[in-house]
Amino acid sequence: MTNSSKKTPDSILLQTHDIDNMEKRYRSHFINSLSGFKSANLIGTQSKDGVPNLAIFSSVVHLGADPALVGFINRPHTVERQTLENIYTTGYYTINHVNESFFKKAHQTSARYKARISEFEAVGLSEQKTHFKAPYVGESLIKYGVKFIEKQDININKTILVIGQIVEVLCHEGLIESDGKIDVNAANSIAISGLDQYHFCRSLGRQPYAKPS
Amino acid sequence: MTNSSKKTPDSILLQTHDIDNMEKRYRSHFINSLSGFKSANLIGTQSKDGVPNLAIFSSVVHLGADPALVGFINRPHTVERQTLENIYTTGYYTINHVNESFFKKAHQTSARYKARISEFEAVGLSEQKTHFKAPYVGESLIKYGVKFIEKQDININKTILVIGQIVEVLCHEGLIESDGKIDVNAANSIAISGLDQYHFCRSLGRQPYAKPS
Repeated sequence: MTNSSKKTPDSILLQTHDIDNMEKRYRSHFINSLSGFKSANLIGTQSKDGVPNLAIFSSVVHLGADPALVGFINRPHTVERQTLENIYTTGYYTINHVNESFFKKAHQTSARYKARISEFEAVGLSEQKTHFKAPYVGESLIKYGVKFIEKQDININKTILVIGQIVEVLCHEGLIESDGKIDVNAANSIAISGLDQYHFCRSLGRQPYAKPS
Repeated sequence: MTNSSKKTPDSILLQTHDIDNMEKRYRSHFINSLSGFKSANLIGTQSKDGVPNLAIFSSVVHLGADPALVGFINRPHTVERQTLENIYTTGYYTINHVNESFFKKAHQTSARYKARISEFEAVGLSEQKTHFKAPYVGESLIKYGVKFIEKQDININKTILVIGQIVEVLCHEGLIESDGKIDVNAANSIAISGLDQYHFCRSLGRQPYAKPS
């Protein structure tokens, strides 16, 4: 924070030069917090040599229901690179909701393990093998298999939007409500804020389809 | 759900044809739930004639801290079109965290109000005018001003990734922790799941930077 920031009794205004002057790690925490609550997901992949990989992502975003599309943002030069390489090689990945019971293990997948190491083994999560071409997380109650469709380069900062089609869904049947909504609270799915904070969530209720009054 | 879905005692496997066969609204609820918890944000803009616009989005995604970039997904042919038109015209928008105290009003902005109607007035939220070229939500405790950088068309379903630079941040000073993290719990920011469910969140704790053990 610099002297140039303007204060009112309640709030502070930080401008571009204030943000630019922040220490790198401070700015990373600060800016990452601004996007609010984010989903906590583990992305499972497999290398061409069959080594499973698992990495936590907070950037999964809904893209559309018909066709069923999901995206995530991959930063350059991070541990997430193995995920991306495996997706390009095999064409498939799984997305697994993190729940309260294993969020610390999920967080530990963000460590820089070598490519030959299975994060499932390293952090102690169950690798669930099925007919699908990427491994699921056994402990996850809501998970789905995704077919890679395309990537879009975000040139301004070299991040990548990875787009895939949801081709199968594995979840406990009791979690699906009568209108198709999945009860993510009952699954104890959790949220992330910033780089490293985890949150449980409780419902404030569903709202009706809004019309002008 | 069709007869072809495969069950185990605990879980159900739904495949592409099951998803394809879902009734449209059912599929929308179902697929929207899969991305997990999403941030609840109001995007504020202004038309070239000075009419303020406010719309709720659950697709805001962190893109990078240096430069400070944020994205959101805009669907085609929705009420969000006014937001997009205003951003293209003026080059600026605000992103405002929704908190527990006004989430029902925030949800109501998703109604199809005519372009000449201010959603601030229609739903009863305070339009906070500043030097910035787009209006803020007075009730929001964490909010920021964004300069439009570029859009990326997602051709497979005609959605649009809107990319902007965070040029100013307005928040209560007491919410900023010593390492830059903003306390979104203390601000009572909330999360969305699916199309219409709102959630409050509570911290499970921050986790240390992970290293291979």
